[in-house]
Amino acid sequence: MSALPLSGRRILVTQADVFMGPALVDTLRLQGAEVIADVRELAAPSAAAAVVAEAGDVDVLIANLALPAPRTPAADVREAEWQQVFEVLVHPLPRLVRAVVPAMRAQGGGKIIVMGSASALRGMKGTSTYSAARGAQLAYVQSAGVELAADNIQFNLIAQNFVDNPTYFPADVQSNPRFQDRLRREVPLGRLVTAAEDAAFVAYLCGPTANCFVGQVFPLCGGWVAR
Amino acid sequence: MSALPLSGRRILVTQADVFMGPALVDTLRLQGAEVIADVRELAAPSAAAAVVAEAGDVDVLIANLALPAPRTPAADVREAEWQQVFEVLVHPLPRLVRAVVPAMRAQGGGKIIVMGSASALRGMKGTSTYSAARGAQLAYVQSAGVELAADNIQFNLIAQNFVDNPTYFPADVQSNPRFQDRLRREVPLGRLVTAAEDAAFVAYLCGPTANCFVGQVFPLCGGWVAR
Amino acid sequence: MSALPLSGRRILVTQADVFMGPALVDTLRLQGAEVIADVRELAAPSAAAAVVAEAGDVDVLIANLALPAPRTPAADVREAEWQQVFEVLVHPLPRLVRAVVPAMRAQGGGKIIVMGSASALRGMKGTSTYSAARGAQLAYVQSAGVELAADNIQFNLIAQNFVDNPTYFPADVQSNPRFQDRLRREVPLGRLVTAAEDAAFVAYLCGPTANCFVGQVFPLCGGWVAR
Amino acid sequence: MSALPLSGRRILVTQADVFMGPALVDTLRLQGAEVIADVRELAAPSAAAAVVAEAGDVDVLIANLALPAPRTPAADVREAEWQQVFEVLVHPLPRLVRAVVPAMRAQGGGKIIVMGSASALRGMKGTSTYSAARGAQLAYVQSAGVELAADNIQFNLIAQNFVDNPTYFPADVQSNPRFQDRLRREVPLGRLVTAAEDAAFVAYLCGPTANCFVGQVFPLCGGWVAR
Repeated sequence: MSALPLSGRRILVTQADVFMGPALVDTLRLQGAEVIADVRELAAPSAAAAVVAEAGDVDVLIANLALPAPRTPAADVREAEWQQVFEVLVHPLPRLVRAVVPAMRAQGGGKIIVMGSASALRGMKGTSTYSAARGAQLAYVQSAGVELAADNIQFNLIAQNFVDNPTYFPADVQSNPRFQDRLRREVPLGRLVTAAEDAAFVAYLCGPTANCFVGQVFPLCGGWVAR
Repeated sequence: MSALPLSGRRILVTQADVFMGPALVDTLRLQGAEVIADVRELAAPSAAAAVVAEAGDVDVLIANLALPAPRTPAADVREAEWQQVFEVLVHPLPRLVRAVVPAMRAQGGGKIIVMGSASALRGMKGTSTYSAARGAQLAYVQSAGVELAADNIQFNLIAQNFVDNPTYFPADVQSNPRFQDRLRREVPLGRLVTAAEDAAFVAYLCGPTANCFVGQVFPLCGGWVAR
Repeated sequence: MSALPLSGRRILVTQADVFMGPALVDTLRLQGAEVIADVRELAAPSAAAAVVAEAGDVDVLIANLALPAPRTPAADVREAEWQQVFEVLVHPLPRLVRAVVPAMRAQGGGKIIVMGSASALRGMKGTSTYSAARGAQLAYVQSAGVELAADNIQFNLIAQNFVDNPTYFPADVQSNPRFQDRLRREVPLGRLVTAAEDAAFVAYLCGPTANCFVGQVFPLCGGWVAR
Repeated sequence: MSALPLSGRRILVTQADVFMGPALVDTLRLQGAEVIADVRELAAPSAAAAVVAEAGDVDVLIANLALPAPRTPAADVREAEWQQVFEVLVHPLPRLVRAVVPAMRAQGGGKIIVMGSASALRGMKGTSTYSAARGAQLAYVQSAGVELAADNIQFNLIAQNFVDNPTYFPADVQSNPRFQDRLRREVPLGRLVTAAEDAAFVAYLCGPTANCFVGQVFPLCGGWVAR
């Protein structure tokens, strides 16, 4: 244990300035990884390939894709909302995979982790667009994950909710007593998961002892869903 | 029991000439429903609204969306494949909901059933695009379903696989001995689910005794997944 | 459709005077079945075999096993509570299967349905004993179900919760305003599922068009869990 | 990172000479924990309390309960098999919880991890007794886990399968070419999970950064189930 757990690992984090990006970058660097923290949005069709090309060979790609979740009743959702959410959260995934897998195959393996959402596992009112996009991510990882396993590429997804991050739980939400009531009532943990706890689990998945997980979905939501 | 089970119910089936459409139309009519069997594809952004408007008020909308599933390794999926599959399977859903919900609310309730796929529940190699799109459907129904329940609208999804239909299991596939071996090995039922069995379950869900299911996913795949 | 849906079917319902028993007996008879409504508890090791032997050959066995659910904090559960709940809910299952399967095989098939609980799918405070027993039922059906499918025996489980029945939701519970609040907050359906709705689903599963389901778990809980 | 990750943690492992016991003891000690490796079976009603009392206060209890899994067709299962499997795998759990929780509460929290089985999540032929018992464990942890979360006790379960261990995959099984074929066909990972990988995940869960997981089930089975 003289070296740090992730010494020598090159890890690319996308949209590194939002959602879980800042916490991931901090934690992964503290554990010894060389982190490429790219801050571009990936909605443009050519963005994913550019980000991967500039990063060079990596051991791990963390697809941290996010935008503020719209809160629109299902019957009021408009085309623009729907398409934008899919452009930011969903369509970049196959492009990232196409861009990063050849080099991972060439180097004998690698890991891809999607920072996804437990809203794909359990319905919530007012989040139909967002849930649909997160559901596409989840099922994509399940299928591509069992396929890429043969290349020694471990492709998994964190299905998180109720994790402290500025994109989804800004300070004004957290200071709202109704939100705190909701936490106590709906989340068995009774508090938000900290960003550091979330990042610590990702760091574990980035390490060499986690090669056994493929195409898997990990709820990380304070017990809001059990699996 | 003098009347047929679905007497007096108006049911709109989309893409009624493919996937489960023909079996659904037959079964629902045999059980007494007035079936509007629309055969248009719904990829065009205006198609969903037009189909719903022409059908007039309905008690049940069956979103039967389908296209031949591409079989492409995940790292080889191209933009055109991905976008087409989402245009046919995913993007019509919020448009159908927006079009049909106001009239359902006005008449005091209704039902929407998506003919979805168990490929969203369990990973399969070579189907990443298709699985992702089916996963978007599944999570969409879970979230919109818990929301629309308050309007007495029951919105649910059939997560099917290994169901006999000409779109996914044409005769040449079924006559392939390797496919029959796979059925015996992977599907506890040991045979394809028949189209009539599938349609009978949908007919049950269309009836008045099934108002208790909301935002739910029903695997219908010969035991390939248990829930 | 001249005959009733379940005409000619002999169906054995256990503990027919409690839990879903009365509603099942009524509905199944209305749909034309010959129902053997046995009211014995099955905790005694020899009870299951006796009940099955006296009933004679049946097309369907409905394992309706119930007792008032204890509400005990996990760290306070005593041996007597634990053993009693397993003796009533769990241990009768393999005995019923051993007793009924030979005759079902001899007649070319049959169906077994367990009236189980969604408490096996989602954790609830204060119900650890009960949830554990219901979890044993659920996993038992999943495994025995994929096995017995080869004998044309369809073995499935209803994972219910928030269904109106005198065993779990007596009148004094239902009239409690806190309970009604809880229903609105936690159950997307916003009301209890009626006993008739539950029984109608079981009746559907008893019929010849439901032969496609094997080893499967059907949540029936007003959307409290989605699958 | 000067100290080892689990320095200062006292961890009790039950049945430490079988199933995952040896690998857990090795890994946890390498990571700095003080491990109490108790080798007694816990079938006797008084055994759990004795093991916990002799161990003294612990930070983590790992309920590693195992016996060779019977392979009996569901309709042939006899009383002795059923009762023995429940006595070894299931009934010790509430006794362990009753014994260990008061001291954990007194010290401000703790962790309990059950080494369970993915056979509770997906049906397998010939394993109905074993699956039922593992299903009881799983649902028990889900319910007791959301309850004990309020005491800062994290109670979770590993749902493993296809993990290299002498209890379930002895050398003669592994050297059987049919078993290797089955691994390639059914397990996306294409190999057994190593005991060290399994133990590394447990070690992660034992650490202070994993306090966010409560009442949760972690499949660890090479992708055989995704969640």
